[in-house]
Amino acid sequence: MAEAPEKKIDPIRETDDEARALARALIDGARFGALGVRDPETGAPMVSRVAVGTTEEGAPVTLVSDLSHHTKALKADPVCSLLVGEPGPKGDPLTHPRITLQCRARFLRHGEAGHGPLRAHYLSQHPKAQLYIDFADFSFAVLDVAEAHLNGGFGKAYRLGPGDLGL
Amino acid sequence: MAEAPEKKIDPIRETDDEARALARALIDGARFGALGVRDPETGAPMVSRVAVGTTEEGAPVTLVSDLSHHTKALKADPVCSLLVGEPGPKGDPLTHPRITLQCRARFLRHGEAGHGPLRAHYLSQHPKAQLYIDFADFSFAVLDVAEAHLNGGFGKAYRLGPGDLGL
Repeated sequence: MAEAPEKKIDPIRETDDEARALARALIDGARFGALGVRDPETGAPMVSRVAVGTTEEGAPVTLVSDLSHHTKALKADPVCSLLVGEPGPKGDPLTHPRITLQCRARFLRHGEAGHGPLRAHYLSQHPKAQLYIDFADFSFAVLDVAEAHLNGGFGKAYRLGPGDLGL
Repeated sequence: MAEAPEKKIDPIRETDDEARALARALIDGARFGALGVRDPETGAPMVSRVAVGTTEEGAPVTLVSDLSHHTKALKADPVCSLLVGEPGPKGDPLTHPRITLQCRARFLRHGEAGHGPLRAHYLSQHPKAQLYIDFADFSFAVLDVAEAHLNGGFGKAYRLGPGDLGL
């Protein structure tokens, strides 16, 4: 077989304002997502569901328990990936837009500078988190975005940087 | 601070038939999921949405294009993780049951033994895949499960092996 002409079939489109707005809307609209971490024992990727909100600056943030496997993994290695943009109950889930955020997690614990304002902001997005947000084992993991891969549906792929997301 | 009494707060329950049935139902009911791979360039975890079906034996399987980033990643390193069990539009998504499958991907391409029967079985689950299943760049990645982490909602965590899933 002939070698594939990689450059000609690069499926990444040039980033435009429409892509930037879609990316921002997917992050702002997310209430949960799929977080990928490296298992500290094996190094294998491991995906779990986490709650997702945003900081006042618009960075994605999750609220996690020290007891959870992904928190232990992020403490060992903060490099992670977050997929947001959930399909509705109807239609082809693979045509629904979604975005993969390549991130580093930064923990913010009770009593640390900025925890109070973020707590208030997060509760405005996740009122039910009131039930456990003050538990000693819960802390925020702010996900600082290094790169984003937007998929707006078949054939609509974009690569974005933090600046494209207003971060 | 005192050290946490880790053994007493181990959140993993003993696996029972109810957990096995729930795990199986989540896999059988999945039409898509979040796949975690290792980025071949950086080693970072990377999560993307994939279609999910099952083989006749009940193993999870996805249909992927050679052009996609996750396919390139799986070819470089077949160790991966699949999260299935999607919340509905209502209720708290973190109380909705889901399962994380730690897997190795095994590709099955057009013309290889077993592709025809798997193609027919997959199309019975994903009729719309008829549109692209025969494209030369599409192949199956059967996900052989090594271990599973079931989360049936807050405080209902289980660790399962392939035998618990009938695999």
